[in-house]
Formats: sequence, structure tokens, C-alpha cells
Amino acid sequence: MKTKQKLLIAKIGGNIIENKNALETFLEDFSKIEEPKILIHGGGKSATKLASRLGVKTEMIDGRRITSAENLDIVVMTYAGLLNKTIVSGLQKYNCNALGLTGTDANVISAAKRPVKFVDYGFVGDVTKVNAEVIKGFLELDIIPVFCAVTHDGNGQLFNTNADTIASEIASAMSDYYKVSLFYCFELQGVLENIADKDSVIEHIDLEKYNELRDAEVIADGMLPKLQNCFDALQKKVSKVHIANADFIKDKTIKHTTLSL
Amino acid sequence: MKTKQKLLIAKIGGNIIENKNALETFLEDFSKIEEPKILIHGGGKSATKLASRLGVKTEMIDGRRITSAENLDIVVMTYAGLLNKTIVSGLQKYNCNALGLTGTDANVISAAKRPVKFVDYGFVGDVTKVNAEVIKGFLELDIIPVFCAVTHDGNGQLFNTNADTIASEIASAMSDYYKVSLFYCFELQGVLENIADKDSVIEHIDLEKYNELRDAEVIADGMLPKLQNCFDALQKKVSKVHIANADFIKDKTIKHTTLSL
Repeated sequence: MKTKQKLLIAKIGGNIIENKNALETFLEDFSKIEEPKILIHGGGKSATKLASRLGVKTEMIDGRRITSAENLDIVVMTYAGLLNKTIVSGLQKYNCNALGLTGTDANVISAAKRPVKFVDYGFVGDVTKVNAEVIKGFLELDIIPVFCAVTHDGNGQLFNTNADTIASEIASAMSDYYKVSLFYCFELQGVLENIADKDSVIEHIDLEKYNELRDAEVIADGMLPKLQNCFDALQKKVSKVHIANADFIKDKTIKHTTLSL
Repeated sequence: MKTKQKLLIAKIGGNIIENKNALETFLEDFSKIEEPKILIHGGGKSATKLASRLGVKTEMIDGRRITSAENLDIVVMTYAGLLNKTIVSGLQKYNCNALGLTGTDANVISAAKRPVKFVDYGFVGDVTKVNAEVIKGFLELDIIPVFCAVTHDGNGQLFNTNADTIASEIASAMSDYYKVSLFYCFELQGVLENIADKDSVIEHIDLEKYNELRDAEVIADGMLPKLQNCFDALQKKVSKVHIANADFIKDKTIKHTTLSL
């Protein structure tokens, strides 16, 4: 059997994107990675700022944005417009041939409106399909896809979709063709045992440890869905998953959290 | 010599984009065109509206936006975010596999800041290079490029660039590979002899006629740079150029203006 080629998938969040120097450093480091690669970015903080400037209310439930039609416009303007193009042009500066994408571009990520159970999240979409072959086609043209957290239903409706989930879903889908390493990059060093102690990084978390930590309510609320995305990816054949500081992509010796089943 | 394949390039402006029904009709018609095709869109009116909501001043000189850093953010959010993704998802609805692009995506359109003569236009870029081979690569994957009027300098700076000019430059560059027809689509039937009479369409304008009309001050101010873009394209080997109502792309029998050298 032919060995699959490596593919690195990195996701960055608001704390990197919002910090001009941190973003610049990350983009330079990312551009130097020689293997095929994909970047996924969030941007919730910027969307909330724009909403506030426009006098539009932002409502979050369990860390998820309730997305009215007006909020969706703000999300699309911020994620697909300002942030995505700032990141793409920042990568082009380092000769990294980036291509910005939402799920509707070349129909790469389809989604369906999240069903209403207790909460109606509005225009929030759950991923139904990642078109891995099209993404592979871009990689084969030496193009580096840069995804923001916007998807579509194929019928003209855009959706706001969680960026961590998009990263997990893309990583899973690409695992049919590549040996995928997925990096969730943020401002901390990894998953912390004690949120007040930035050095208390849990270096290895398997499913058993995850359940244990969750039951003991050791893990902060926002980290739980991120970990769930990590284990979803591992269960769908993603080779490696790490939660780490953005510096980890250039220096693999720094402390970080590795996930495994 | 091998005959070049046909390529249709259409540009739509604010009066179509801002009108939900007109846009829907145009996107449905455009999706039905069977030959390879490219869409370019403007969106100045939407940018001006957002600027106004954000309390940011919009200053225009000779129909060009003076683009401060703040105006540039608004332009990028509006053109590359909301409008581009609305159009792309609207085309996907009709199974037209659209891909939204700014000039920085896959480095397709480079530009340089417009030199300051009498006016400093700020972050306005003049096109220096269209990467026709990359665009051809997308077309060969049956992907329909949808460009908004944002370019970059390759060094991390985005620019606001006139959409009519982008259409002309793309049409010229693609003429190395395709037999290109360029359609400037808008709400009128064509170039009018008398702006007060919507039926006074000048059906054919060559360079001599253009100079005559310009000298007689018959043509409205906004139309002059558009005509200049048309003649630039024709001089750079674009096969056909029309200024027409959006309906012209499905019904070639309606009155319109054809340009020739």
C-alpha cells in the first residue's frame, strides 16, 4: 500500500488573530512549513466588536453565537471579508500561495441549519459534507486553502459554523487521502489542569482521561467542545491531534497537549 | 492554428447587486451559460451604506472612492465578505460551481498604490498583473471565478480597485488563452445619447465615435471611464465588448451597445 502524504491542518482563534504581532509571527511560521497545509481561522471577537459598533446585539449560549440574519451578515463580513483577506494577503507576503475559502466557495463545505431543540441558534449550520476532492485539487495546484467559519446549504443560504468543528471535519475528510496532523493553536500552552496556573499543561489526554477530567469539572467550559472536536477527528482516522500554543508549529519541543483515543 | 475556446466575462454593478430580484434573475441566467465564464462585481453603494452606519466619511473624487485605512476595511468587508459570498452562494443554488476571489487569493491580481498626482486616493490600487494561468487552472476544474474589486501588492497590503477596470484587465489577460467576450451589465439598455431618454441607446461605438461623443460632452461622466475600459480591452485583443442591460446575457436580441476599435 502506498504511504499517504502528510498534511498539516492548523486552526487559529481570536486571541492570535486579534493580536497583530502574534498573527504576523504565526503567518510567517506557517508559511515556512514545507508539507501541504491548510489553515482554518475563527474571529468571533472581531464579529462581536463590529456588531457592537453597528448597535446589533450579540447573544451567546454555551459559547455559541445566536445568529440572526443581521448577525450572519456581520459574521460573513468579518470572517470571509476582513479577517480572511488579511490572513491571505499576510501569507502571500511570505510567498505562501493562500486561497481564502468559505464553505460555499467551490461548494467545499455543506451544512444544515442546526435543529431547534431547546435553543434556536438561528443561522448556525452543522457540517454535513466536506468536499475533500476539491480541496485536494487545490493542494495539488500548490494552493494553500485558508478557511473561515462560514458554510452554506447549497440553496443560497450561508451559515455561521464553529471554526473548531470545521477544522475537525476538514481533517477527518482529508484523512481519506492524507496522513493528517491537526493543530489547534491558541494563546495558552495546552489544556490546563488548573486554569489559574498557565504552566499546568496536561501533556497527554486520552478518551478515558477526557471523561475523567470532564466528570471532575476540571476542564473549563470553552475547552469541552474543543476536546470533543479533537476526539471526533481521531475517531475519524486523523493521525495526530494537538492543542498547543501558536509557537508549537515551528518549535515542536515546547510543552503542549497531545490527544489520543 | 487551434481555435481558441470561448470565454464569457460579465461585470455587474451596484444597481443589480442592491436589487434582490434583479440579482436573483441575473444569477439564474448567468448559471445557465454553458461556456466557460467569469463574473466580476462591484458594490460601492453597499460600502457607502456600511460606512454611513459606522459613522465613517465617504469621499468620492471623479467617481473614485478616497480609500482611507478605515474605508479599506469597509470595502473588504462589503465586497469580499457580504456581497461576494451572497453572489457565490446564489450561484451554487443553481449548480454553478462558483469560487469567490479577491486579487490576493492565489495571487490572481497584483496592484500598486495609485501614484499621488493631484489627489491621494489612499489605498486604491492600479492593476499591475493578472495571473491568467491560475484563473485558467480554475476554469479547467469547472470552477467559475467570481471576482470582487479588491487587489493586493504581494506585500500584505490590500487595495480597493475599480471593478470595471478589473473586468477589463482580466478580459485582456485571458485573451492569451481564450476568445473573450466582455459584458458590462447594468440597469440601462446601453450607452445613451440622451441620459433623459432611456431608449436613446447608441448601438455601436467605435474609437472615432467615442472621441466625438466625449468632445461633444454627450456621454455622462460616469460612463467615460467605463468606455475607456472597454477600448483598453479591445486594444488588448478582447474579441467583443458590450455595454448592456443584465437581461442581455440571456436575450441577445435586446437593444444594447457594442464597442469596436
